[in-house]
Amino acid sequence: MNDPTGFPAPAYARMVLAPLFDGYQRYFREHLLAVHHAHGIMLRERGWLTRAQTDAIFAALADATAQTANKILEYSGEHEDYFFWLEAQLADRLGRDLAGRLHTGRSRNDIDHTILRMVMRERLLGLLGQLHHLVGTLIRRAEENTDTLVMAYTHNQPAQPTTFAHYLGALIEALLRDSTRLLRAYAIVDRCPLGAAAITTSGFRLDRARTAELLGFGAVLENSYGCIAGTDHIAETYSALKILLLGLGRFVQDLNTWSSFEVGHLRIPDAFVQISSIMPQKRNPVPIEHLRLLCSLAAGRAETVLLTLHNTPFTDMNDSEGPVHEAGYEAFDTVARVLELLEALMAVVGIDQERVRAHIEQACATITELADSLVRREGIPFRQSHEIAARIARQIIAQGISLSALPMATFIDAFAGVTGQAPETSEAELRTICAPEHFVSVRDMFGGPARMRESLESYKLDLLAQQKRASVHRACIDTAARLRHAELS
Amino acid sequence: MNDPTGFPAPAYARMVLAPLFDGYQRYFREHLLAVHHAHGIMLRERGWLTRAQTDAIFAALADATAQTANKILEYSGEHEDYFFWLEAQLADRLGRDLAGRLHTGRSRNDIDHTILRMVMRERLLGLLGQLHHLVGTLIRRAEENTDTLVMAYTHNQPAQPTTFAHYLGALIEALLRDSTRLLRAYAIVDRCPLGAAAITTSGFRLDRARTAELLGFGAVLENSYGCIAGTDHIAETYSALKILLLGLGRFVQDLNTWSSFEVGHLRIPDAFVQISSIMPQKRNPVPIEHLRLLCSLAAGRAETVLLTLHNTPFTDMNDSEGPVHEAGYEAFDTVARVLELLEALMAVVGIDQERVRAHIEQACATITELADSLVRREGIPFRQSHEIAARIARQIIAQGISLSALPMATFIDAFAGVTGQAPETSEAELRTICAPEHFVSVRDMFGGPARMRESLESYKLDLLAQQKRASVHRACIDTAARLRHAELS
Amino acid sequence: MNDPTGFPAPAYARMVLAPLFDGYQRYFREHLLAVHHAHGIMLRERGWLTRAQTDAIFAALADATAQTANKILEYSGEHEDYFFWLEAQLADRLGRDLAGRLHTGRSRNDIDHTILRMVMRERLLGLLGQLHHLVGTLIRRAEENTDTLVMAYTHNQPAQPTTFAHYLGALIEALLRDSTRLLRAYAIVDRCPLGAAAITTSGFRLDRARTAELLGFGAVLENSYGCIAGTDHIAETYSALKILLLGLGRFVQDLNTWSSFEVGHLRIPDAFVQISSIMPQKRNPVPIEHLRLLCSLAAGRAETVLLTLHNTPFTDMNDSEGPVHEAGYEAFDTVARVLELLEALMAVVGIDQERVRAHIEQACATITELADSLVRREGIPFRQSHEIAARIARQIIAQGISLSALPMATFIDAFAGVTGQAPETSEAELRTICAPEHFVSVRDMFGGPARMRESLESYKLDLLAQQKRASVHRACIDTAARLRHAELS
Amino acid sequence: MNDPTGFPAPAYARMVLAPLFDGYQRYFREHLLAVHHAHGIMLRERGWLTRAQTDAIFAALADATAQTANKILEYSGEHEDYFFWLEAQLADRLGRDLAGRLHTGRSRNDIDHTILRMVMRERLLGLLGQLHHLVGTLIRRAEENTDTLVMAYTHNQPAQPTTFAHYLGALIEALLRDSTRLLRAYAIVDRCPLGAAAITTSGFRLDRARTAELLGFGAVLENSYGCIAGTDHIAETYSALKILLLGLGRFVQDLNTWSSFEVGHLRIPDAFVQISSIMPQKRNPVPIEHLRLLCSLAAGRAETVLLTLHNTPFTDMNDSEGPVHEAGYEAFDTVARVLELLEALMAVVGIDQERVRAHIEQACATITELADSLVRREGIPFRQSHEIAARIARQIIAQGISLSALPMATFIDAFAGVTGQAPETSEAELRTICAPEHFVSVRDMFGGPARMRESLESYKLDLLAQQKRASVHRACIDTAARLRHAELS
Repeated sequence: MNDPTGFPAPAYARMVLAPLFDGYQRYFREHLLAVHHAHGIMLRERGWLTRAQTDAIFAALADATAQTANKILEYSGEHEDYFFWLEAQLADRLGRDLAGRLHTGRSRNDIDHTILRMVMRERLLGLLGQLHHLVGTLIRRAEENTDTLVMAYTHNQPAQPTTFAHYLGALIEALLRDSTRLLRAYAIVDRCPLGAAAITTSGFRLDRARTAELLGFGAVLENSYGCIAGTDHIAETYSALKILLLGLGRFVQDLNTWSSFEVGHLRIPDAFVQISSIMPQKRNPVPIEHLRLLCSLAAGRAETVLLTLHNTPFTDMNDSEGPVHEAGYEAFDTVARVLELLEALMAVVGIDQERVRAHIEQACATITELADSLVRREGIPFRQSHEIAARIARQIIAQGISLSALPMATFIDAFAGVTGQAPETSEAELRTICAPEHFVSVRDMFGGPARMRESLESYKLDLLAQQKRASVHRACIDTAARLRHAELS
Repeated sequence: MNDPTGFPAPAYARMVLAPLFDGYQRYFREHLLAVHHAHGIMLRERGWLTRAQTDAIFAALADATAQTANKILEYSGEHEDYFFWLEAQLADRLGRDLAGRLHTGRSRNDIDHTILRMVMRERLLGLLGQLHHLVGTLIRRAEENTDTLVMAYTHNQPAQPTTFAHYLGALIEALLRDSTRLLRAYAIVDRCPLGAAAITTSGFRLDRARTAELLGFGAVLENSYGCIAGTDHIAETYSALKILLLGLGRFVQDLNTWSSFEVGHLRIPDAFVQISSIMPQKRNPVPIEHLRLLCSLAAGRAETVLLTLHNTPFTDMNDSEGPVHEAGYEAFDTVARVLELLEALMAVVGIDQERVRAHIEQACATITELADSLVRREGIPFRQSHEIAARIARQIIAQGISLSALPMATFIDAFAGVTGQAPETSEAELRTICAPEHFVSVRDMFGGPARMRESLESYKLDLLAQQKRASVHRACIDTAARLRHAELS
Repeated sequence: MNDPTGFPAPAYARMVLAPLFDGYQRYFREHLLAVHHAHGIMLRERGWLTRAQTDAIFAALADATAQTANKILEYSGEHEDYFFWLEAQLADRLGRDLAGRLHTGRSRNDIDHTILRMVMRERLLGLLGQLHHLVGTLIRRAEENTDTLVMAYTHNQPAQPTTFAHYLGALIEALLRDSTRLLRAYAIVDRCPLGAAAITTSGFRLDRARTAELLGFGAVLENSYGCIAGTDHIAETYSALKILLLGLGRFVQDLNTWSSFEVGHLRIPDAFVQISSIMPQKRNPVPIEHLRLLCSLAAGRAETVLLTLHNTPFTDMNDSEGPVHEAGYEAFDTVARVLELLEALMAVVGIDQERVRAHIEQACATITELADSLVRREGIPFRQSHEIAARIARQIIAQGISLSALPMATFIDAFAGVTGQAPETSEAELRTICAPEHFVSVRDMFGGPARMRESLESYKLDLLAQQKRASVHRACIDTAARLRHAELS
Repeated sequence: MNDPTGFPAPAYARMVLAPLFDGYQRYFREHLLAVHHAHGIMLRERGWLTRAQTDAIFAALADATAQTANKILEYSGEHEDYFFWLEAQLADRLGRDLAGRLHTGRSRNDIDHTILRMVMRERLLGLLGQLHHLVGTLIRRAEENTDTLVMAYTHNQPAQPTTFAHYLGALIEALLRDSTRLLRAYAIVDRCPLGAAAITTSGFRLDRARTAELLGFGAVLENSYGCIAGTDHIAETYSALKILLLGLGRFVQDLNTWSSFEVGHLRIPDAFVQISSIMPQKRNPVPIEHLRLLCSLAAGRAETVLLTLHNTPFTDMNDSEGPVHEAGYEAFDTVARVLELLEALMAVVGIDQERVRAHIEQACATITELADSLVRREGIPFRQSHEIAARIARQIIAQGISLSALPMATFIDAFAGVTGQAPETSEAELRTICAPEHFVSVRDMFGGPARMRESLESYKLDLLAQQKRASVHRACIDTAARLRHAELS
């Protein structure tokens, strides 16, 4: 590829420069063009270039990039990187003088960090779009399932009935917080470092606010040293990803348990079940296992980006530039797979009400409500009501019956044995009290299952607000593209 | 300690229950009391308890806890945990009926998660206080050093002069973003789960907003399942810590380089230098090495908390309760050591201007400004000015002189050789252009070193605003304590 | 504590030196004494000290340390660290000349790294002892359970019956590999760096092999730069810990599933079950949850040590010395809790054969053996036998019966429907083929459940061999202590 | 791609099955063929298949795979995965009966784990080859540089002179330990799980030892549950990678420091230096920065694999199968880039003796030898010799001279001032004692710089032994391929 004694050494070219050249073309080519355009327009506005000069420059850029559109050039070793390759193309077309003028008051440092932030913005907006779609689906499923019973667990053991909507509500709230977190990361990313030049800005009077506007940034990033050395926008973005993935992974573990043979609360359509020809009874919900794995892989890939920053100096360095960002895109791509698959799955899963009810009965999961109700209805102290409930539970277990089949006599005996008197509660009332529907319906406190319709309305508003924010960011980027386009001609 | 055949098994008592009992007393005792008070007051207000009852309960609580104030009880195996130990104390004093009434509509689940959030609030406020103190010190040092030259590096090589204030400005901006991040984590933590009971709230009409107010929370956390199963407030908090540490660690690596024998830009007072008796010339700035290590340890400890959440189910579970939080406090403690030591160090370090200047000269670090200036002053194209600068640099290196000692004739030769004409720039002007002070002073763009006074004013305002936010949170907690206190009697 | 203008700065003393002084006394005091003894003896043997001198030195050491036995001195700021504190004690008793002679050809660097390796040896041997105890218990439990049926899962779904012994065998093999891994780490740790002095050895003719012997090391670590800068023995040790913990954590997740309400295969004695007073049917096997958490915490703590090494220079540095090792001991302590608790639990858990059998039936888990058997017994092709089995499985599911209750007629119909002929297999044979005992008994291939007795014998031999290796290491350390003791007087 | 209501769901096909199908063809196609061949040969030898049958099967396999050689088929959704695609190809050519017979006593579980271990073997052998090449180069460079002085640092400060060979020796020893570690991981990976079938082996009498031999495995992995559920071979392999990378990363940080402008000890050829057109004096050794980054990325990718195992159950699961292994190959690929680039760099770097000497002088780095020598030559106590050295060092610093220029009078004064007598050491002897060459040459203890030739001989033997072991493993794999080939016809 090149002369072994001169730059670049073949091993360096093969192991580093060629992959960089390739990655630059795949990920950054369009953004470099946008930065060139924005900077050129601003230079003209500030009087550093004439319109004739920018016209020539933009034409040369168009010509050079048109030739390589949809192509990935191979690295030849002639130019250090894609930036210099493009500069050489401009010099060929414009002469070195004019080509060089486009570089007034800039350096590869601030250009690269500007481009990397532009790509992060797009990645974040893409992710937010998918996340909002998932939340929308979950809200819809929750609306359809405000009366669907599920088993709620503590310490891996069945504890209480609740509704599928209530369970999903917890997840929806968490995902809305994830969305907020990603939007906050966006706001940190969305600051323009252009004009910082190599480190300290330059002696040319440039208009940093104008280039930021022409590139659709929300703000200018102030300190120019921080522009080329700061990395907390990277750390915040990949931390937000990791938090999202840890949360999704926990939800996936629930799906895993719920879809197990012995639990069987979750009904997964055949489209997501791998079946064995020899064992037609065996239904492997392998997509759930893949979701767990993909969450882990994506979390590990996000963490890899954080690791690269550890114990590096605070300075312009490769450890926060192209290659590590490209590694980060693998994390984004994996999250995208998680979100698409999970949304498709959640859109179609169902709850097996019969099995859920059977387990609620077997686990005596409503018995705490019996104890609570006796306190409220019979006016007896907690201690007594709990003892009554405990006696009943022991009987039920001893007799192998279910709570709904509790003989009224057993109830009366237990009540009398503890309080020395007869209960006022009738058999019909007893049945009601022990029913899972009742359990759920009395839990109408703020945040409880009986208040889900109200909660869902607030989630919808929150989702809408967050989608709005994301679309404002998107519009800002699109507007900037139109602004640049208008100024090009 | 206990009967080997009954609960608890000796190994379980020794390995888990005893450490839990110990940790509960160290970290959570006071908060449990506050939760009991707040809940009792609310129950009275809602009519579930009479004043006489709450008076008796609060007196019993006072009596039970007074006996163990400043003591750490050893675990006896009699009660599963400290919560039950205290309940037994109440039952002894009040009878089981009344003692049990305090538990109306609650469970250990929502109590524990409320307490854990209360401790996280304090840890975060403590950390914010230290962080703001450090930022204050850095702003002060920056104000003192707006004209102090330092060397700015790229790719580990000297690149350009700038000011110490400008360098510190980048750090200050990053730390202010860290502060924002921690305050945002605070806002997520600062939501009250009390009233969620085991999972689904209860059938008792409780006032969740009132208990939240009485405990100084900013809001009620809505979905009750999320109240006991959500973990993203933990993940966000420890991620924010980790981002802070990765950033501080990078700054520490700079201190490390700057204080090396060969660089020697940073002057560290003797109070922070370990000296060898045999080698008086050897000055080991070991505190910097310790800072790097402490940053790594704290980051690892924060990450450990995140790891415990991975692939757990979304449910109430020990993996997000006491022990993992106690492990997290080790991360907070280590960060506290970093911040205190770093603040003390930064308050007293100085920059060796002579050495910095010498290296600026040797590294020809101002030569880019010469090239830029010729463009602006002589009206020649970039290409020519760069070639002139390159010729000069080669001469300087060949002759082993420094840029400030550049013979005027060499400059004129280089200029004429490239442009075919004589420069208009005089020798005095040339000297000015090549001086580091000039380099810095022309960089008066937004975010540049010559605009630091302005930047510092904005940092001060930002710091003040963030301190204000933290003190509002603190006041909210203090007010709640006073509210509870007023209601106790 | 000290003069704020002189060394040490109060913040440095508080945040670093005092914790170091404290930690040194807790963890390293005895080992420093041993190193002093070994080095002194060797110096005498090589003629650098006379017997009278070493007698005086050893007496002074005994006197100085006797005064502080069982005490933790507070840090006063007078001496940089415990090493210098002890040196000052010696100087007081012996004069600085003689006290200094003990330091011939040494430095704190090689002393510290020697001590740190000595402590790692002990930690590793302690861990190996616990691990071997656990493996011994598992082998015993496997021997007791070679006929106990359990359900084996794939993709989280019941797949086939096997025996508890067979399942435990997989774990035993993995733990024996963990033991091997830890012993290999031991061999890397067990090399003596003493004599490397600061970095390069010294001009004194010392006998490195002799001090290594007197400290019970298996070998001398050769390259003296590596002696003070190498860290892969640390990385290998904590990686081995992490591998162990990842493996144990996976096993704990199985215990978690097996002990769930719906699966219920694992019977856990009351001594390990937390019970709710109100819900006597609820049995929370919380120790299992704690085991999962402790595995995560220990893994995170091990990883923290690895993180501290990342992107540090290859040189003598604090990042691989006392404080990071002390952090590592927290990982060891947590592993110790895991191993003790898990051993105690595994010693007493049982398998609920009735529930396991019921699930084997419900899951048709032996049906693959029916298909396989028909191939072998009836000489029909696989394709046919699989189709017969599939038809039967569909019938069983449709009729809601279990495989053991399969009507002979259904079998004959299915067989004839596929092959066009009657089966030779009798009803009695059919029952046998479908029984889980048969399933297990025909799997007598190497590594199969019917070969477990043989496997267990080989595990016992392997365990014995590993215990032997550990005890040889222990003896080597003890012998060295006796050697030193003999030479002291 | 497929019917939205039937399996597979489009999202599942797109997000999981298609990438799996693609990855299987890229990484595992050849190995599946080898497993089919080995199993078929063994079945014939055990009498389960006739020669005519295996001839037909092998011919069909050859035909089916020949059609797709060098092609990557797109996923159609018709077959679940590549395994079933190939089975369908066989069924088309052989009929389902005969095609199915090849599957006697096997399952996808044991096949997949066999294949994954086969690929890991190759990856490990490839890595070992590169590592041995690097070690060979380092040994050669050390042999060339046994007299080349370098500065050895402690706590980031210059401490003592040593030789480049001595420094490299530390690295060579560490890399040889890495090689041993990787070979040990190889031995764990190199055990054959084939015959375990789904979990429990089967009732067919198969010869597991024979298939293991035909696939070149070193041993059969015993417990069949462990065959499909064990993951410690994965954890050990990627831990070994991570240990290697942490070590290389530390070495790279040294290269970084040594090549900095202010230190400048390392001479890097132009082929590895990126140069600025405007600043000819600026030499950016960017490859070193890239090496640091690549080490971090590779370490993060290795850790990602470990993360996927965390808190999964001990069972057959996707989390330890194809996709996570494919993610692991990215770690291997990144390590390969590190090793190739580092080897190429180390083959050509040099040490700037002038600068090293100047810094040794400035840092008084040989003064400890002066103190030590006075003890040995003048017979004075340590305390006195150290005080003399300290006085001299103070003088040198005060006068700004170097140790080699120490006036004899100053030495005599210092000596007399402390001891009250004149030194016996002559001026010539003094010069010798203070010279770095002398410093190095007297350090001829085991492991010291003056014993490097001896050390290097032992390293060469060790390297040869390790290369031998790797080549034996390679031969074992190649022999197996020949064995299979011979049996195919």
